[in-house]
Amino acid sequence: INVFAKVLYEFVAEPGNNELSVNEGEIVTITNQSIGGGWVEAQNSRGEVGLVPEDYVQRVSGLALAGADDDEWDDEWDDGKSTGGYTEEGGEGGGLNRGAASMKISLNKFPGFSKSGPDLYLLSKQGPKGKEKLPIYRGEVGPVWLYPEGQLDCVVADPKKGSKLYGLKSYIEYQVTPNVSVFHISAAFGPTLKRLSLPAADLLGRFEEEFIKMRMERLQGWMTRMCRHPVISSSDVFQLFHSYKDEKDWKTGKRKAEKDETVGVMVFSVIEPEETLPDLDLLEVEQKCEQFSRFTKAMDDGVKDLLNVGQEHWKRCTGPLPKEYQRIGKAFQNLSSVFNSSGYEGEATLTDALTAAGKTYEDIAQMVAEQPKKDLHFLMETNNEYKGLLGCFPETIGVHKAAIEKVKEGDKLVAASKITAPEKITMTKRASTMSYALQAEMNHFHSNRIYDYNRVMQLYLEEQIKFYETIAEKLRHAHGQFTTM
Amino acid sequence: INVFAKVLYEFVAEPGNNELSVNEGEIVTITNQSIGGGWVEAQNSRGEVGLVPEDYVQRVSGLALAGADDDEWDDEWDDGKSTGGYTEEGGEGGGLNRGAASMKISLNKFPGFSKSGPDLYLLSKQGPKGKEKLPIYRGEVGPVWLYPEGQLDCVVADPKKGSKLYGLKSYIEYQVTPNVSVFHISAAFGPTLKRLSLPAADLLGRFEEEFIKMRMERLQGWMTRMCRHPVISSSDVFQLFHSYKDEKDWKTGKRKAEKDETVGVMVFSVIEPEETLPDLDLLEVEQKCEQFSRFTKAMDDGVKDLLNVGQEHWKRCTGPLPKEYQRIGKAFQNLSSVFNSSGYEGEATLTDALTAAGKTYEDIAQMVAEQPKKDLHFLMETNNEYKGLLGCFPETIGVHKAAIEKVKEGDKLVAASKITAPEKITMTKRASTMSYALQAEMNHFHSNRIYDYNRVMQLYLEEQIKFYETIAEKLRHAHGQFTTM
Repeated sequence: INVFAKVLYEFVAEPGNNELSVNEGEIVTITNQSIGGGWVEAQNSRGEVGLVPEDYVQRVSGLALAGADDDEWDDEWDDGKSTGGYTEEGGEGGGLNRGAASMKISLNKFPGFSKSGPDLYLLSKQGPKGKEKLPIYRGEVGPVWLYPEGQLDCVVADPKKGSKLYGLKSYIEYQVTPNVSVFHISAAFGPTLKRLSLPAADLLGRFEEEFIKMRMERLQGWMTRMCRHPVISSSDVFQLFHSYKDEKDWKTGKRKAEKDETVGVMVFSVIEPEETLPDLDLLEVEQKCEQFSRFTKAMDDGVKDLLNVGQEHWKRCTGPLPKEYQRIGKAFQNLSSVFNSSGYEGEATLTDALTAAGKTYEDIAQMVAEQPKKDLHFLMETNNEYKGLLGCFPETIGVHKAAIEKVKEGDKLVAASKITAPEKITMTKRASTMSYALQAEMNHFHSNRIYDYNRVMQLYLEEQIKFYETIAEKLRHAHGQFTTM
Repeated sequence: INVFAKVLYEFVAEPGNNELSVNEGEIVTITNQSIGGGWVEAQNSRGEVGLVPEDYVQRVSGLALAGADDDEWDDEWDDGKSTGGYTEEGGEGGGLNRGAASMKISLNKFPGFSKSGPDLYLLSKQGPKGKEKLPIYRGEVGPVWLYPEGQLDCVVADPKKGSKLYGLKSYIEYQVTPNVSVFHISAAFGPTLKRLSLPAADLLGRFEEEFIKMRMERLQGWMTRMCRHPVISSSDVFQLFHSYKDEKDWKTGKRKAEKDETVGVMVFSVIEPEETLPDLDLLEVEQKCEQFSRFTKAMDDGVKDLLNVGQEHWKRCTGPLPKEYQRIGKAFQNLSSVFNSSGYEGEATLTDALTAAGKTYEDIAQMVAEQPKKDLHFLMETNNEYKGLLGCFPETIGVHKAAIEKVKEGDKLVAASKITAPEKITMTKRASTMSYALQAEMNHFHSNRIYDYNRVMQLYLEEQIKFYETIAEKLRHAHGQFTTM
């Protein structure tokens, strides 16, 4: 059974690079989904086969090709989106977005503070009722979130296939097990099993398993990151997801969550900087804001650069390089079998050694081809996740900037009787809360980033060391068989 | 100063492979002679730069381009050829002969037994006078040469540039030091220094040194191989070359050597199988001959295959692969400097570690690029030498086959009174001598081959092991700098 895909953007193959040129709207057959590194192998209608960036194509079912409406599915999942941040859209979510990106919400996209301007919050009449406040306190590095004692966590496992729309749409359901026993709010509940489903695209054949595993890892990474975030993990809907026991619970909670007013920019209304933190100096705030902005942009560039380099390297490691080691291995073995036909006595030691050396290079070929999945994969997944996170900052910083501008206009607004003097004071205080929240968020980001990059580099280098050591060991073994006595 | 080269054969570049298409007769500028692996980097008149197989081009001097006659030089060196086998023609000698080859005598070409038919020897009236006989005796593996007790040997060193034809032709003179003290015939002489000159092509600029070194290695390899061969090392001219003391000595000896009649097929007249070796059975001889022929052809294919694979691998190791490691290194360092600008406290450990990791990958890039010269080089040189040796066998085997055919016609020739009955007996005996000589030569070849391939594989694998171990060690060092405490 073929896996078809629709080409979303034109892609021009680099010559000699095993790539396939495709045009927007073209339908191709996916011949290998497990290339990795952001690539899939596809075949066009002329039978040409080559690599295409995976997010340049969108998997479609044969039935969808025959005219079924894809939007219906999207609508349904758009609905899912409003209940929290844990759904994922489209088969190509979280891929490497070379050029334009098409996902609506992908696993690597961290929810931003708000898309609307800051006014709603800055000028709102009253704070939220009965909401527990999220404090910001003065840490060693500056303003920081208060982290809950028992951190929310969950384990994503046990993928199961399902289908809906009379079999037209298949999806994968993952089991999510929250560690609610240590959850500081819902500690009363024992661990419960939840099933979270994601559209499965049209996964068929022998690559399915690997593909599902990769998506499961991404979901796990995303869930863990959400759990680690004190603001998100304390949101009603997130807690509901972790603590609900049955369908009824979920529906009630969902309805309640839909009425939650502390969404968007109003999230700042539940944030409360501690008394010890003074109101901020506007100029200083603007400078900090500028620094965050520069940093996130620079990191975005750096991360994308690393992803591009990794993608190229991935292709070489899974394509031409192992082929070459294989050819070297074959050439040694070939020479060995020629020598074996010499009829000369005392040939066996050399021919055995040459065969062993040849097989060693064939082993190396396989190791080279499999290595990216062991190391580069995680390096790229982490950077991909960060690319998504960084994509949220411009909006967050933008809302904050708008708030600062509003405060600057404060006196003018009072003079024009647009706001009262006490309102101006409230507005200034709230802008200060936003500033502290942004700083706490940046510090949260930095501390996570330092941990994450240390961790992923350790993993990467550990696997690289193992790789080179194993090769050296194999070669040492092969070397031992030659003799010049 | 530019090094120009004339394109000898059309070469069509493989796309995306950093190659340059060139046409026969085109003049290109050599921009890098030290690529190695059978490649040079050249620039055409349109300014395009890329790799071209080194034996597809012939270096020419600016003066030669301006109309100087190259043949004059060749003639002079043709003269040199007649005095022995130790001169080398042309700047491109010993290169990888992809496609047609153009050299006259290259360093890797072993002198064959003869180009003429076997009749001269088979039907000659008398044997050579006063010549020491070269025995063939029955060894463990069959007929073998008698190896002299003290083997002739020499050291090639100390290259010096010189010029002739009023500076139009430059050459490199190498100092050849024979170990005549252990030479079984000329032991009376103490070690003397000889200088052997080779045309230098037009070597200019920074690659000269490396190029001269490579040619010196080849000359050394060729001299050693000649010294190791009992028939060649016992030839008058070879001994003269090793033992002469002054110009006069050399000229006298050369004149004498030019009168030597035991050249070409007559070399068999000084070969004498021991009494214990019976006259050979014709059918058996033909079968052995057929086996030699098959083996040398198969090995020729195997060697060429390995050379092609090696050439491709060389190009990748010195081209795209190190570039990629460099890009990985740069991406890590780039990310490190971005992180360094975060303004977040406690950033230093990660940024230092990332910088170190980046530098490590830059080191690896350099190691990858330099590695072929440390290992692949010797593997290719050895196979190149063997390609040359194998190229001589068809002729040798052909002469031998012709001798067998002649013997088969023996009775007919006697009946037609073309030869006498005693001449037929002599002819049969001499054909048997040729058969034993061929077998001794094959056994000589096999035993040398087994030693040489064991040796070169040991060298290759030793360097490969060192390479991978050094990388692992470097990475271990980089890994140690990351921390997730």
